[in-house]
Amino acid sequence: MSCLAEHGWAGSTVSVVAERAGVSRGAAQHHFRTREELFTAAVEYVAEERSAALRGLFPDAGGGVAGADRTAVVAALVDLYTGPLFRAALQLWVAASNEEQLSPRVAELEARVGRETHRIAVELLGADESGSGVRETVQGLLDMARGLGLANLLTDDAVRRKRVVAQWGRLVDEALG
Amino acid sequence: MSCLAEHGWAGSTVSVVAERAGVSRGAAQHHFRTREELFTAAVEYVAEERSAALRGLFPDAGGGVAGADRTAVVAALVDLYTGPLFRAALQLWVAASNEEQLSPRVAELEARVGRETHRIAVELLGADESGSGVRETVQGLLDMARGLGLANLLTDDAVRRKRVVAQWGRLVDEALG
Repeated sequence: MSCLAEHGWAGSTVSVVAERAGVSRGAAQHHFRTREELFTAAVEYVAEERSAALRGLFPDAGGGVAGADRTAVVAALVDLYTGPLFRAALQLWVAASNEEQLSPRVAELEARVGRETHRIAVELLGADESGSGVRETVQGLLDMARGLGLANLLTDDAVRRKRVVAQWGRLVDEALG
Repeated sequence: MSCLAEHGWAGSTVSVVAERAGVSRGAAQHHFRTREELFTAAVEYVAEERSAALRGLFPDAGGGVAGADRTAVVAALVDLYTGPLFRAALQLWVAASNEEQLSPRVAELEARVGRETHRIAVELLGADESGSGVRETVQGLLDMARGLGLANLLTDDAVRRKRVVAQWGRLVDEALG
C-alpha cells in the first residue's frame, strides 16, 4: 500500500513490493499471480481493516449514535479518505481509467467497498433510508468525503477540512432529523 | 487534454501530443519548454474556458439566481467535475503526488482554479459569505462535486449522481436561506 501511495501504479511492480516486504519475488507471485491481483487484494484488505476500525470507534451505535455525536461520525467518515488507504486506492483508480486490464476489477472493488462504507455510514448516523432524500444525503456526504480526500493529496488541507466537516456535520444532522 | 485523460501522465509525452496536434515536436517545444509547462498550461486554459462557460449559463445571476434555480447551479457546478477536464486534471494531480518536480506547480494551479471556482459558486448561488458557516457550505458542496467526479471515473454514475444533486441542491438552498 505504501508503495502504491508513494510511487503510483507505474512505479509499483511486484519486485519492488517483494523487496520492500523482505520476501522473494517468487514468494510474492506464489500468493498473487499478477500485479493486478496483488494490489486489488491489498486495497480490499486495508479497506476492510478501516471499516472494522470505524465501527470500533462507535461501539454503542446500534441504530445510530445520539444526534450530538453525528459530527464525530462525519469526521470519522471523512478520515477514511484522507489517509494512506485513499492515496493508494486513488492511484489504482486512476491507473484503471487508462488500463483496460485493470478497469473492471477495480470498478468492482470500488463498488463493493463503496456499498460497505455506505452501510456503515447509515448505521452510525442512525439514518432512516425509508425517508425521502435520506439515502442521497448520505451518498452526497460520502462523495464530499472523497472530494476532501482529493483536496488533501498535494497539500495539507486539515485546517480547512475541519471547518467544512463541522458545518456539514450540522447540515447532515439537521437533514436527518 | 484528451491525451492526458486517455493515456495518463506516463503515456503523455510532448511527442505524443505534438503528433496528435499535427505539429512538429520542435514547434511544441518552442511554446512549452517542458512537459510540465505544456500540461499545466493546458489544464489552466480549459479550466478558464469552463469557468467562462459556467458564468455564461446564468447570465442574469448578478447577486445570485432565484432560489428555485439553485439546484440548476449545483448541477452545473457538478458538471465541471464529470467531463474530460476533470479526468485530465486528475491524472495531473495524481502524477504530481509522486513527482517532486511536478508537485508545487500543480498544487499552485489547483489552488488558483479552486479559488476561481469558489468565487463563481458564491456568485451564482447568491451566497452571503458574511453569514456563519456559509463559506464552508459552499466549500463542502464543491468537495462533493469533486467526489462525484471521482465516482464517475470508472463507471457511468449519471443516474445516481442526478439524485444526489437534486437532494444536495435542496440542502444547500435551505442552508443558504
